[in-house]
Amino acid sequence: MTDASTFLCSKFSEITLAINTSYLLFSAYFSFTMQIGFALLTAGSIRSKNIMNVMLTNIMDACIGAISYFIFGFAIAFGPSNGFIGYHHNFFALNSFPDSSGYDFSFFLFQWTFAITPSGITSGSMAERTQFIAYLMYSFYLTGFVYPTVSRWFWSSNGWASATRDHNSLLLSSGAIDFAGSGVVHMVGGIAGLWGSFIEGPRVGMFDGSRRASTVHSHDVPLVVLGTFLVWFGWHGYNAGSFLTILQSYEQQFPYYGQWSAIGRTAVTTTLAGCTAALTTLFTKRFLGSHWKVTDACTGLLSGLVAITSGCAVVDPWASIVCGVVAALVKIGLDKLAKKLKFDDPLNAAQLHGGCGAWGLLFTGLFATKKFVNEVYSGDGSRPYGLLMGGGWKLLSAQIVEIIVIFSWVTLTIVPLFYGLHRFNLLRISTEEELAGIDITSHGGFAYHYEDEEVEETIKKSQKLKL
Amino acid sequence: MTDASTFLCSKFSEITLAINTSYLLFSAYFSFTMQIGFALLTAGSIRSKNIMNVMLTNIMDACIGAISYFIFGFAIAFGPSNGFIGYHHNFFALNSFPDSSGYDFSFFLFQWTFAITPSGITSGSMAERTQFIAYLMYSFYLTGFVYPTVSRWFWSSNGWASATRDHNSLLLSSGAIDFAGSGVVHMVGGIAGLWGSFIEGPRVGMFDGSRRASTVHSHDVPLVVLGTFLVWFGWHGYNAGSFLTILQSYEQQFPYYGQWSAIGRTAVTTTLAGCTAALTTLFTKRFLGSHWKVTDACTGLLSGLVAITSGCAVVDPWASIVCGVVAALVKIGLDKLAKKLKFDDPLNAAQLHGGCGAWGLLFTGLFATKKFVNEVYSGDGSRPYGLLMGGGWKLLSAQIVEIIVIFSWVTLTIVPLFYGLHRFNLLRISTEEELAGIDITSHGGFAYHYEDEEVEETIKKSQKLKL
Amino acid sequence: MTDASTFLCSKFSEITLAINTSYLLFSAYFSFTMQIGFALLTAGSIRSKNIMNVMLTNIMDACIGAISYFIFGFAIAFGPSNGFIGYHHNFFALNSFPDSSGYDFSFFLFQWTFAITPSGITSGSMAERTQFIAYLMYSFYLTGFVYPTVSRWFWSSNGWASATRDHNSLLLSSGAIDFAGSGVVHMVGGIAGLWGSFIEGPRVGMFDGSRRASTVHSHDVPLVVLGTFLVWFGWHGYNAGSFLTILQSYEQQFPYYGQWSAIGRTAVTTTLAGCTAALTTLFTKRFLGSHWKVTDACTGLLSGLVAITSGCAVVDPWASIVCGVVAALVKIGLDKLAKKLKFDDPLNAAQLHGGCGAWGLLFTGLFATKKFVNEVYSGDGSRPYGLLMGGGWKLLSAQIVEIIVIFSWVTLTIVPLFYGLHRFNLLRISTEEELAGIDITSHGGFAYHYEDEEVEETIKKSQKLKL
Repeated sequence: MTDASTFLCSKFSEITLAINTSYLLFSAYFSFTMQIGFALLTAGSIRSKNIMNVMLTNIMDACIGAISYFIFGFAIAFGPSNGFIGYHHNFFALNSFPDSSGYDFSFFLFQWTFAITPSGITSGSMAERTQFIAYLMYSFYLTGFVYPTVSRWFWSSNGWASATRDHNSLLLSSGAIDFAGSGVVHMVGGIAGLWGSFIEGPRVGMFDGSRRASTVHSHDVPLVVLGTFLVWFGWHGYNAGSFLTILQSYEQQFPYYGQWSAIGRTAVTTTLAGCTAALTTLFTKRFLGSHWKVTDACTGLLSGLVAITSGCAVVDPWASIVCGVVAALVKIGLDKLAKKLKFDDPLNAAQLHGGCGAWGLLFTGLFATKKFVNEVYSGDGSRPYGLLMGGGWKLLSAQIVEIIVIFSWVTLTIVPLFYGLHRFNLLRISTEEELAGIDITSHGGFAYHYEDEEVEETIKKSQKLKL
Repeated sequence: MTDASTFLCSKFSEITLAINTSYLLFSAYFSFTMQIGFALLTAGSIRSKNIMNVMLTNIMDACIGAISYFIFGFAIAFGPSNGFIGYHHNFFALNSFPDSSGYDFSFFLFQWTFAITPSGITSGSMAERTQFIAYLMYSFYLTGFVYPTVSRWFWSSNGWASATRDHNSLLLSSGAIDFAGSGVVHMVGGIAGLWGSFIEGPRVGMFDGSRRASTVHSHDVPLVVLGTFLVWFGWHGYNAGSFLTILQSYEQQFPYYGQWSAIGRTAVTTTLAGCTAALTTLFTKRFLGSHWKVTDACTGLLSGLVAITSGCAVVDPWASIVCGVVAALVKIGLDKLAKKLKFDDPLNAAQLHGGCGAWGLLFTGLFATKKFVNEVYSGDGSRPYGLLMGGGWKLLSAQIVEIIVIFSWVTLTIVPLFYGLHRFNLLRISTEEELAGIDITSHGGFAYHYEDEEVEETIKKSQKLKL
Repeated sequence: MTDASTFLCSKFSEITLAINTSYLLFSAYFSFTMQIGFALLTAGSIRSKNIMNVMLTNIMDACIGAISYFIFGFAIAFGPSNGFIGYHHNFFALNSFPDSSGYDFSFFLFQWTFAITPSGITSGSMAERTQFIAYLMYSFYLTGFVYPTVSRWFWSSNGWASATRDHNSLLLSSGAIDFAGSGVVHMVGGIAGLWGSFIEGPRVGMFDGSRRASTVHSHDVPLVVLGTFLVWFGWHGYNAGSFLTILQSYEQQFPYYGQWSAIGRTAVTTTLAGCTAALTTLFTKRFLGSHWKVTDACTGLLSGLVAITSGCAVVDPWASIVCGVVAALVKIGLDKLAKKLKFDDPLNAAQLHGGCGAWGLLFTGLFATKKFVNEVYSGDGSRPYGLLMGGGWKLLSAQIVEIIVIFSWVTLTIVPLFYGLHRFNLLRISTEEELAGIDITSHGGFAYHYEDEEVEETIKKSQKLKL
């Protein structure tokens, strides 16, 4: 009988690993499409004279990120050590992998798709006027150091503010709940973008009366729409994938209920929050005097997705609708404020990822349910949960701590870099280059060549052919 | 021993749920890319002055659909109750989910990706001339009511004509077999589009001699090609995903054969039907005097995919080739007929989804095999199957019933709406707006801004720079 | 007790099949996106007057390939028979499927996504100047015969040079290791393209002084970027999917280690090689005097992906960085050589897929580790492995044999076809057609119609409307 048990145990263990790795790996692939989406979204949203630049930065996010996150970023984030930073030699360059503690290559790949996101967000805020050399520096720094430390604090089981930490040493007996990264990913990128954009200042002519701010159009809306859809598609890998495993039971008495249900529910809350925010933005802007603009629907959708990312796994579907409505209003309000303050972020990325990211953290502190918090974060029923659900102030306080900590840490680490670059004239391109477009001055020419220098001749010639 | 059995049973149950949920959830993600594909396909196929509008409607399909299907559409379609409509309170807003009857959130997400398709099809038929307010109304109505009822009748285990109904009460002892929705999804969208397009009439100048019908070109063929590819990619999630589960054995004597094989076979029949139809359309149109047009290959591909959707799970791969050839010819014939009748559908969506959808239902009634019908619909070997395979007239009759019922129901429910909107001048935009393009009159401007108002100046300036 | 064992055995067998089929099927879907990516990449890279043609050929690759690979290609590649060619009647048109030897429909679908790739590569080399009728012939021939034989030799367990062959009859006691096809897929396409492009000669004006070679620009860089990203996304399905199964244990003593880990590692080596090559290309070209060009990053990325494809499963992550650096340099060198030799390949596909594919095979012979070779190819520890890892010359020799055999076989089979077509004036279009663009002469017109013939009138009219 012992032999049989051993056989069964090892068989079940193999099956579990195969199922969970499949789940995590495919989630990573989906999650990667967000990077594709952000590239197109950013390129489509700005002027055609600068898109070679932003597409290059989006590819570089992934490439620089792969190398730096492989060599040291992942070790900083997830290596064993202390609650603030990881430095165990087994984790640098995935030296001893897979690790008996359960970390495997698929987890690295999944985390890499997250690590490259903040830098993409920041490059949106700083689009159309930043030197490529400055981009290379802040991207490497953000992906390799600033982000990994934050992700350690809130996601690693060693992190000082993590909700997956040992139950006896949880921050405020709760830990901050940032399931897929409204704060860890989006606020980090948004705050970095806020400072970068602020330090280099608005684009030429945005607020000096020579042109109205609203006259900078998205140069190619189908690219924006495609990008938004791809981001949305990928977001399922992001949010639902953050469970990391799917084969895990919650309650013996209802055998049909387990992590697989929670994962499906998370996909549903993600969808509902995004859709609600899209509708809210479209109608609100329309009634504020705008047209029925597809770009409003796109931006709105993203604001809902950013906000739900923190609480997606621990709130009821109906609550995600509340999350979406408020996210849309937060975004609209912050955009108005930015215009008033003459803050120029070409993608409104600071407002979107910073503002809605912060709202997402608060939302979780208000609406997380007792049942879901204890299931997803394997509690015994005594964990604090959402204030409005009767769970007290502890979780909400932990969420506020996360907001303050992320704002402070990113500010502290990124402002010296941007300011230093600014002082040495390495941050912003010259006015002449900006007017000409960064593509032609630094990236080898324009992105489109619909007309060929031969075309006129050939059209003449082709008219002589019998077509 | 009882403890061991209980443990094993619960373990196997968990494993089964994890595998099947992964399968269904990823299928839902893939299926969602169809919506992305349709958006690009439609945008690329029409004139550039109207694409902000169609891209917005495609996003709205998903957003309005998420809210309405969440709140009541899903309950109408799948709630327990009677054979015609569902109204159990547990299902509204997924009130009590997951349900012990086996419905879980992943199933809702999967069904949502189907629910938003008909409205997308209809918006193709009505492109370039419909008021946005009319769109909002018919989209909400179609996704929230017309489609859910139809899907209940043919897909819910309660549905009066469903093939998954209790064996003793099957329509014609068979039930209609519409595996992934040639009828339920495509005909519903196509027939609604047919009436909408008919009631508002052709676009300005299409048939009054001022321009030849053929002079309306796809404005951006790469968008059409990308859209078609994404639709094709997503269709695998649609068709193969409609099994809902993958871990199910069919025959104990061949342990390597089960639902996993049927799923692979379904992906193969889907691919073969699409490819055959693409080739048939390309060559047929070429020999009818056209050029080798990539848009013919795209349209052809879609006609094959629409047609195989009903029978994909229950026919042999070779039969799917027959399906594709006929689907292509049906589409070509209906397009000619439409032109003759001066019926103007900018995407030919009524012909494609309505016509090829109906052919798909008939095809299943002709070619479904005994073995596959009894495996996929868990019969004891006595179920009626395809007429040409020796299975008698019962299945084919049930398929014809489905065609008639869908045509009648959609007509009955949608014509009053479109006619009412038409009477109150809420359906069609004015001729002036149509000539100017709906983007500039209702959606905030054109989709493309390749040239910037600064450009001329900057080009002059850039020539002075040393580049 | 026997009953219980039988039940457990059959249960485990079902679970294994369901998990592995899910894994393979989704990998096939991802892999299919490479075809979408190649279509966009090719279309974006050439002049706008020829893109209807290349998009059509990319769709035809998939469609012609589906039919020919279904009817006979798959039987040639994987049917039982001898080491050189398969001809068992059970495999033509998947006549008796699923097969008790373990082949199922999902495997066919996965292999189909590989079979259609070489023809897509070749059509890149021959872009902008090849008759469509010539394309139809070489595509059918390549996908239906040339490629299936090669894939048999190196991938079928019957293949004479396969590493999965019976251990006693391995070529050089090793067999060539071409895990996902640097040689079988990429070199086949690249060599065919080399000959096709060579026989039809360079595009008009490329080297006659009337224009500099570098003046042919990518007409739409966002399409190139999107295409590259989709290819990258799909490559994970390609490389990691080539394990075919995920539920397989390697070592009983470390229950957390198995094929699932090797699969994750493969995804990581793939990513690292691509990213390294992108960075290497971008910086190398920059320091050679170019700009920071996004198209360099794209091309570089692809060169790394092509090269790692052979060894992705059997090398350490750090080695994949070496692979990427060298792949980038190989590609840059070959491009310079091609320019010097006045060889004109519009996509540089011969250099990319042929050159980096060959480097990939050599790389595997140098860096494959003992542990991974014996795990992935189920050896007892005695298999030859990488020369630089201490594994001797046998594997490297087998890799060189593969390079020579593929070069010779493709040359022998494809040159007569191209030369024959050339002699009968069926290969290349006329100079007039080439100048006018193949789209307008053969494919029904240009791909873009941003301006409508009505536009000028309507703009005038719209100015009168109150907008």
